Amino acid sequence: MPTDYYALSLELHKKYKGKLRMESIVPLTTREDLSWAYSPGVAEPCREIAKDPEKMYDYTLKSRTVAVISDGSAILGIGNLGHKASMPVMEGKCVLFKEFAGVDAFPIIVGTQDVEEFIKTVKNIADTFGGINLEDISAPRCFEIEERLKAELDIPVMHDDQHGTAIVTLAALINSLKITGKKKEDIRVVLNGAGAAWVAISKLLYLYGVRHFVACDTKGIIHSGRENLDISKQKILEFTNLENKTGTLADAIVWADVFLGVSAAWALTEDMVRSMAKDPIIFAMANPTPEIMPELAKAAGARIVGTGRSDYPNQINNVLAFPGIFKGVLKYRKTKITDQMKIRAAEALANYITDLDEEHILPNPLDKWVASVVCEAMKDE
Amino acid sequence: MPTDYYALSLELHKKYKGKLRMESIVPLTTREDLSWAYSPGVAEPCREIAKDPEKMYDYTLKSRTVAVISDGSAILGIGNLGHKASMPVMEGKCVLFKEFAGVDAFPIIVGTQDVEEFIKTVKNIADTFGGINLEDISAPRCFEIEERLKAELDIPVMHDDQHGTAIVTLAALINSLKITGKKKEDIRVVLNGAGAAWVAISKLLYLYGVRHFVACDTKGIIHSGRENLDISKQKILEFTNLENKTGTLADAIVWADVFLGVSAAWALTEDMVRSMAKDPIIFAMANPTPEIMPELAKAAGARIVGTGRSDYPNQINNVLAFPGIFKGVLKYRKTKITDQMKIRAAEALANYITDLDEEHILPNPLDKWVASVVCEAMKDE
Repeated sequence: MPTDYYALSLELHKKYKGKLRMESIVPLTTREDLSWAYSPGVAEPCREIAKDPEKMYDYTLKSRTVAVISDGSAILGIGNLGHKASMPVMEGKCVLFKEFAGVDAFPIIVGTQDVEEFIKTVKNIADTFGGINLEDISAPRCFEIEERLKAELDIPVMHDDQHGTAIVTLAALINSLKITGKKKEDIRVVLNGAGAAWVAISKLLYLYGVRHFVACDTKGIIHSGRENLDISKQKILEFTNLENKTGTLADAIVWADVFLGVSAAWALTEDMVRSMAKDPIIFAMANPTPEIMPELAKAAGARIVGTGRSDYPNQINNVLAFPGIFKGVLKYRKTKITDQMKIRAAEALANYITDLDEEHILPNPLDKWVASVVCEAMKDE
Repeated sequence: MPTDYYALSLELHKKYKGKLRMESIVPLTTREDLSWAYSPGVAEPCREIAKDPEKMYDYTLKSRTVAVISDGSAILGIGNLGHKASMPVMEGKCVLFKEFAGVDAFPIIVGTQDVEEFIKTVKNIADTFGGINLEDISAPRCFEIEERLKAELDIPVMHDDQHGTAIVTLAALINSLKITGKKKEDIRVVLNGAGAAWVAISKLLYLYGVRHFVACDTKGIIHSGRENLDISKQKILEFTNLENKTGTLADAIVWADVFLGVSAAWALTEDMVRSMAKDPIIFAMANPTPEIMPELAKAAGARIVGTGRSDYPNQINNVLAFPGIFKGVLKYRKTKITDQMKIRAAEALANYITDLDEEHILPNPLDKWVASVVCEAMKDE
């Protein structure tokens, strides 16, 4: 990334002091305006909500507003820089919610990385919002935080780093299977990972019907014989490596149909690609430098390559999912985001592509119609 | 208040689901827009803030955004309806911040009325914001909450029900003294109160130079001989009744120059007004029905009457203070709102009036220039 590129981003952020601002919807010109929008007229919606708390959805911004919340423990690919440093990402996410789905979103940074205190804080402010998008929270803490909040709150909660990535990956896979003619039940998938996303990806693909997975980390294949597996690796074993293979990534990838990388730059070599089955599908999602550069993967025989980058085809970008997901759960007043809803969202994304080919397996992240399609997938079938 | 009036307010609130929405400041049309505003460009302001947390003021909405926070324990004049029911007030306050001072503000309702947990929750989310406006929190809890948050946070915190009211009351008093020719050192002030505002009013007037106060509650004059005085009444004794008078409100008000009511409808009778000194000044601020109706007070001899109502002259309305106060502390990066700043704000409000008379002691609450004047009063002298 060139230095002037970063300089431009700094300049943009400094120009208006951030990226998001508030706007009044109601007129405030006359004394009557003031007394309807504020005191004393405002007493009436207060009394109505006191009688029936659900009326918050009628009379306040709750019904159309999401919180984007982080503790800054896993910012982008950078790491744990603390909650304050995460604010530009959270504000950016709110801008994407608004621009891509018309969803109002507000960023909240939480100044504790203690799991219990974080959960308690989010619970205490949750009634303000119609949904909660958790962001940039480190694994394995993110699993407990998300599960607890989902269980204990009556509004939808989603850790986007996990499930947004999983949904878009599944969409990309669905279309890649169409192109290659491979079947979900038959494909062999190697997942190379770390962090928040890989448990969600493997779980969603398993629920979709993928059966043959092996997951690797920097020490090689995750199998039940390995000691000191953290909770994310224990969880991943519920869906992967049912044959309990051992070895390295290079061992795992032989004859594999699909490589899914949420790991680190350069983790996949050309030799590994050459060892895969016919028509390899490579999603090298490490940011900003993928596990293998697309031109190298292609040269080594890959049929389809996707990355997280905007300067290559097939950008696997969460922005395809989260704005529409929350637009939908708000529109249809869902209290949970279920696995079936995630699969329907992935299918909707995949089906949105009419001119499918190797370089167009996903919608353009800038296509502002996508959110409406994903939104409708949140409705009951 | 007629029923159709409340119906109109409900309709207004329901029309757009609340009153406040988010808006993106940055363009999001091209892939470059996306990569500057979001990933990967956004990594750079994150890294800058990680190196120097103060840079949040340059690169995020913190520098221009206030939180409006409540637990719903003392909503308007209605009482403790809980945090959810307070949301329309908080959202309305945010609209006033934006419309009157161009300050971005976001409402947060906190689902606990436990003082320690409330404080911890607010502290945990405080770094998101450049200032905190506490609202509709019951006395005496509000005193500890505000004092603790002021001491423990590095951004300005103000409980508007206390200090906004005190500032506007002082402004109204300053101009009333100009009209009547009375002197602050000489006037006898009777404060009839309850709730959050009266300690702040008496303290600010004392600091301004008013010396002769007596405070009353429903049981009469507050004096050191009374038992079981709550913390607000103990505090008020630090500034009032230095002669340790006893008796009822009717006893206290004889020969008084000023009546300040933050109490309840009809607490002040015409006979009491008749017993006051020459040119009585009456601020009957109970909402929506004042301690005495202006026409009755005038008939009984009052020279100047102010209320909280928009349908009478001299509306003593917090909206004259809080938007400009926070505009100023954000503009001048103040970490505290000091008593001197409050007095300067009151003087600025009073001096804003050029055509001073009995019915025009305060600016029009709809005058959108007022906030700029108050804002500049936040600057160091």
